[in-house]
Amino acid sequence: MASDDGKAETRVWTAALVIIGDEILSGRTQDANLAYLARWLNLHGVRLKEARVVPDEMAAIGAAVTQCLAAHDYVFTTGGIGPTHDDITVDAIAAALGRRVVYHPDAEAALRAYYGDRITEARLRMARVPEGAQLIPNPETGAPGIRLDRLFILAGVPTITQGMLRGLDGTLEGGRPVLSRAVGAWTAESAVADLLGDVQRSHPEVQIGSYPFWRDGRTGANFVIRAVEPQALDRAAAALAAALRAEGIEPVEGEI
Amino acid sequence: MASDDGKAETRVWTAALVIIGDEILSGRTQDANLAYLARWLNLHGVRLKEARVVPDEMAAIGAAVTQCLAAHDYVFTTGGIGPTHDDITVDAIAAALGRRVVYHPDAEAALRAYYGDRITEARLRMARVPEGAQLIPNPETGAPGIRLDRLFILAGVPTITQGMLRGLDGTLEGGRPVLSRAVGAWTAESAVADLLGDVQRSHPEVQIGSYPFWRDGRTGANFVIRAVEPQALDRAAAALAAALRAEGIEPVEGEI
Repeated sequence: MASDDGKAETRVWTAALVIIGDEILSGRTQDANLAYLARWLNLHGVRLKEARVVPDEMAAIGAAVTQCLAAHDYVFTTGGIGPTHDDITVDAIAAALGRRVVYHPDAEAALRAYYGDRITEARLRMARVPEGAQLIPNPETGAPGIRLDRLFILAGVPTITQGMLRGLDGTLEGGRPVLSRAVGAWTAESAVADLLGDVQRSHPEVQIGSYPFWRDGRTGANFVIRAVEPQALDRAAAALAAALRAEGIEPVEGEI
Repeated sequence: MASDDGKAETRVWTAALVIIGDEILSGRTQDANLAYLARWLNLHGVRLKEARVVPDEMAAIGAAVTQCLAAHDYVFTTGGIGPTHDDITVDAIAAALGRRVVYHPDAEAALRAYYGDRITEARLRMARVPEGAQLIPNPETGAPGIRLDRLFILAGVPTITQGMLRGLDGTLEGGRPVLSRAVGAWTAESAVADLLGDVQRSHPEVQIGSYPFWRDGRTGANFVIRAVEPQALDRAAAALAAALRAEGIEPVEGEI
């Protein structure tokens, strides 16, 4: 059926992530938000197509955000929205987009409620937003995330980032999620590269990725098939399994 | 002494990393090369100033590499140099740089030596390089990395990537490494944001980053001071410790 071949998908929604922070680029901190955001976006029918890591510098943050906004439907940033001097994400984005920075009254109220009489000017910095922004609830601490139309400014601490994403559940327009199915095999990927290429060419409605590994002294590979149509996945997986068996290699359903 | 203030550093060498692979952008695989490369580069006096993650698409790979080459002294790529159909890094970079793809005779010899009579056309794909390239030894498997002047095309599997970087030890011209020193404190960063900003402003020769955490029910933060001059680090760390003590907060030498 033609409608199984992914042609029903008339529009692909894409997103970019801008990871802000010297601590990532120095190797001090391992990013833990990209993979979580990628899977969260896919559930909403949006593909993460690009990510950038930039330092805590106004120009670098501004350029990455504006370039990503020009190329994708949605842009997310993580990091740099705390109370300290190195938290310059809001200022950088406002400057790049030509907006003033203002105190959002609801954010100020949330921070005053959270901190009580421990509120300070530094803590109130977290109520500063580019003019016209909406807030994204933060169930972990008082400082909200910020939404500016299709730009989402999130915290960098993963538990807080994830809480903010939960607050965005169901609010993004998207297309169909990408489904995936893995076929594993105890073989070197280079030994099956030709048959893999053949299956890819005869199934253009899926993407097949090959991910080799070495484990316990054995060579293996997982072949991950991705498509929006479950029938397309099934057909490609069956063709790949048959091609592997024809070479005397027993396929394993799912990742090894 | 004026010579302590980082002014002796006349040139800062910078690098970018382009991480290539649908598996990173889908959330399937966690990148493990950025942090390692960042620390390796710093030992060579080069700062990782930007990283991008791009899908397995010719145009996206080409654009990221050419833009990063225009902006930085060195560019590294990881991923997409294996034997399978989804390994298109060499083709994408050659196309973007207007070079032909050729078989490198030394790479072909290395692959033939490694695989012996198991050599196949797919495995020989790993000898393909943009014309004019040099090889980077791969101590793990037969497939070498590729150097094109100030562009380094590395494998994506971390053990192989790291082996290739060891082969590059001492071959990059750089400046002075960034030194870092951490001061920890059991306090909310927002409680000390003002004093932190004061210390930063009075020590412009260092960068101070603030990294809050929550652990075992307690709030803490590590303040990481970075500079090329050890004396500048010492001065800023002493000033920060004194400022914390003045607020009744005991500083902890090193990261908590």
